[in-house]
Amino acid sequence: MGFEEKIRRVTPYVPGEQPKEADIIKLNTNENPYPPSPKVEKAIRDFDADSLRLYPDPASSVLVEALAKRYGLKEDEVFVGVGSDDVLAMCFLTFFNSDKPVVFPDITYSFYDVWAELFRIPYKQIPLDENFRIVPGDYAGGAGGVIFPNPNAPTGALMPLEEIRGIVRANQDCVVIVDEAYIDFGGETALPLIREFGNVAVVQTFSKSRSAAGLRIGYCFANPKLIRALNDVKYSFNSYTMNRLTIVAGAAAIEDEEYFRSSCAKICATRERITKALRETGFVLNDSAANFVFASHPDVPAGDIFKYLKTRKIYVRWWDKPRIRNHLRITIGTDEQMDVLIRALKDFLTP
Amino acid sequence: MGFEEKIRRVTPYVPGEQPKEADIIKLNTNENPYPPSPKVEKAIRDFDADSLRLYPDPASSVLVEALAKRYGLKEDEVFVGVGSDDVLAMCFLTFFNSDKPVVFPDITYSFYDVWAELFRIPYKQIPLDENFRIVPGDYAGGAGGVIFPNPNAPTGALMPLEEIRGIVRANQDCVVIVDEAYIDFGGETALPLIREFGNVAVVQTFSKSRSAAGLRIGYCFANPKLIRALNDVKYSFNSYTMNRLTIVAGAAAIEDEEYFRSSCAKICATRERITKALRETGFVLNDSAANFVFASHPDVPAGDIFKYLKTRKIYVRWWDKPRIRNHLRITIGTDEQMDVLIRALKDFLTP
Repeated sequence: MGFEEKIRRVTPYVPGEQPKEADIIKLNTNENPYPPSPKVEKAIRDFDADSLRLYPDPASSVLVEALAKRYGLKEDEVFVGVGSDDVLAMCFLTFFNSDKPVVFPDITYSFYDVWAELFRIPYKQIPLDENFRIVPGDYAGGAGGVIFPNPNAPTGALMPLEEIRGIVRANQDCVVIVDEAYIDFGGETALPLIREFGNVAVVQTFSKSRSAAGLRIGYCFANPKLIRALNDVKYSFNSYTMNRLTIVAGAAAIEDEEYFRSSCAKICATRERITKALRETGFVLNDSAANFVFASHPDVPAGDIFKYLKTRKIYVRWWDKPRIRNHLRITIGTDEQMDVLIRALKDFLTP
Repeated sequence: MGFEEKIRRVTPYVPGEQPKEADIIKLNTNENPYPPSPKVEKAIRDFDADSLRLYPDPASSVLVEALAKRYGLKEDEVFVGVGSDDVLAMCFLTFFNSDKPVVFPDITYSFYDVWAELFRIPYKQIPLDENFRIVPGDYAGGAGGVIFPNPNAPTGALMPLEEIRGIVRANQDCVVIVDEAYIDFGGETALPLIREFGNVAVVQTFSKSRSAAGLRIGYCFANPKLIRALNDVKYSFNSYTMNRLTIVAGAAAIEDEEYFRSSCAKICATRERITKALRETGFVLNDSAANFVFASHPDVPAGDIFKYLKTRKIYVRWWDKPRIRNHLRITIGTDEQMDVLIRALKDFLTP
């Protein structure tokens, strides 16, 4: 057997395009249209570059303390990582360590099955209903683990906290991860459940509501026992994942609560206006609780709209996949960007 | 079975202490005593903080191009990650995917067995000889993979390139990783082997010779096929591990070749002087090709010296482990720091 047979083969996740041209309207990877808090810029300006010769604090204490304070938690209830992808991957590796299948929706964040394959974790995808909603009764127990986003992606559908509590109650023999990447755009967090139950992990990110996708910070809230297990795996993987700049810039972002609230509010207002405008243009879409909408047009294939928008230098997200082939996921940009989008759609759809 | 039985238990790696006091002399984690190139500071000052709202380039092209140019390689021969720990962990996960044991020295970088345990990779530790040298003939083939540092840590012993070539030749049926964290302090890199053989990966880091442990950058050079396999695993784990600041600051560090050469030369000169001074103080040590020395004293237990130095606010590294219990690993600091160390040692050792 040669060395090539010893290499692990995986089907890599295909992320949304990251085009390098400057003058495009980028509504395809759910980034925030507004820059991060000015406090982040100040933290970077004030940073002592000479300190880079030293390893960072492996516990990222400055950042963990800022998060604990902001969310009214103890520091041992907080874990941080390199974006929520890193945090979620560590959660898969740490918590989903059984022979029973981990369950998650069939239409959901497309990394879940990729991590399961990578770590050889058995999994089962549970179909959303015909209206693209999670059916809580389908998560009735006996799994090796449970994970779902709330609001779900790419649908934007929000589950009420009471339904999530029901899922957790039915799954007391495994860890339940609530992936709240988009929770700050109008949802109710499952954070209170981490003290109500020992087996709940709530994962959030700086990439959306904190305008810092380029900084790579995600975090997990859970019972101290779960956090300790996560840290043990993390320290055995790489003790120093959060670099010195990231730690201070991230703490600065968390400390500017007013800026955070105001930019979330702007995005929610734009989303409501654009949901209406899209419906007026003939699109069908459910209300979204995220910083994107998930829309289809009864007469025009989504793939055609996707390709047309690219010719207008507008990038949205489209998957050539069963069930969602006729939908577009459109990130909420600035009001000006969304007006350009609506004009382009009208140009294409008006006979 | 409750949820707690589904949690993966690992024995976490215990990194060197990162004391937070300011006035200590820190010679325990092999950091560079000199700050990074002034070009790194400039790159951070000039950084556009608003751009943080966007995801980073998943390919880290600016950094990969800088590395490829500096080392005379093509871009598809370069992989980057969050410190060499991340790169090495990805290498373990990607390349060591067989039922045969991966082999590495018994006295070596203490993360190797931790990663093997984490990913459930069988492994076998091969003893160094009584003079703490790797015996090339012990790596005669049939393994699931081979990894060793050159120079080795914590011994500082350098293997000549011809011996490494022999190990590679004897192990054509698995991937051989040469971990060159310390190669810039006087060793000859195995880089030419990546074009001579398809199964060699050479891993280096910004944490030592580039004075940027706090930035978290490591990289791997290998045949494009190996790099592609690494990237597939990396993208399935987390597409965006290198943040925007890290990419530009890292590229700036690589571009300042003159600064790099001069700070490595200073450290090597200090090392030669201190090796002599330690021998004069009664220590026994081999020549080191790294930015640390590995020394023992025939009359005084290393653990006692370690504890005494702490009372003088000097931190070195000591492992209470078989075979190396009587050795200290001492990072090469500035000339001033090393003079303080020698004085403290004389105070303790002189009757």
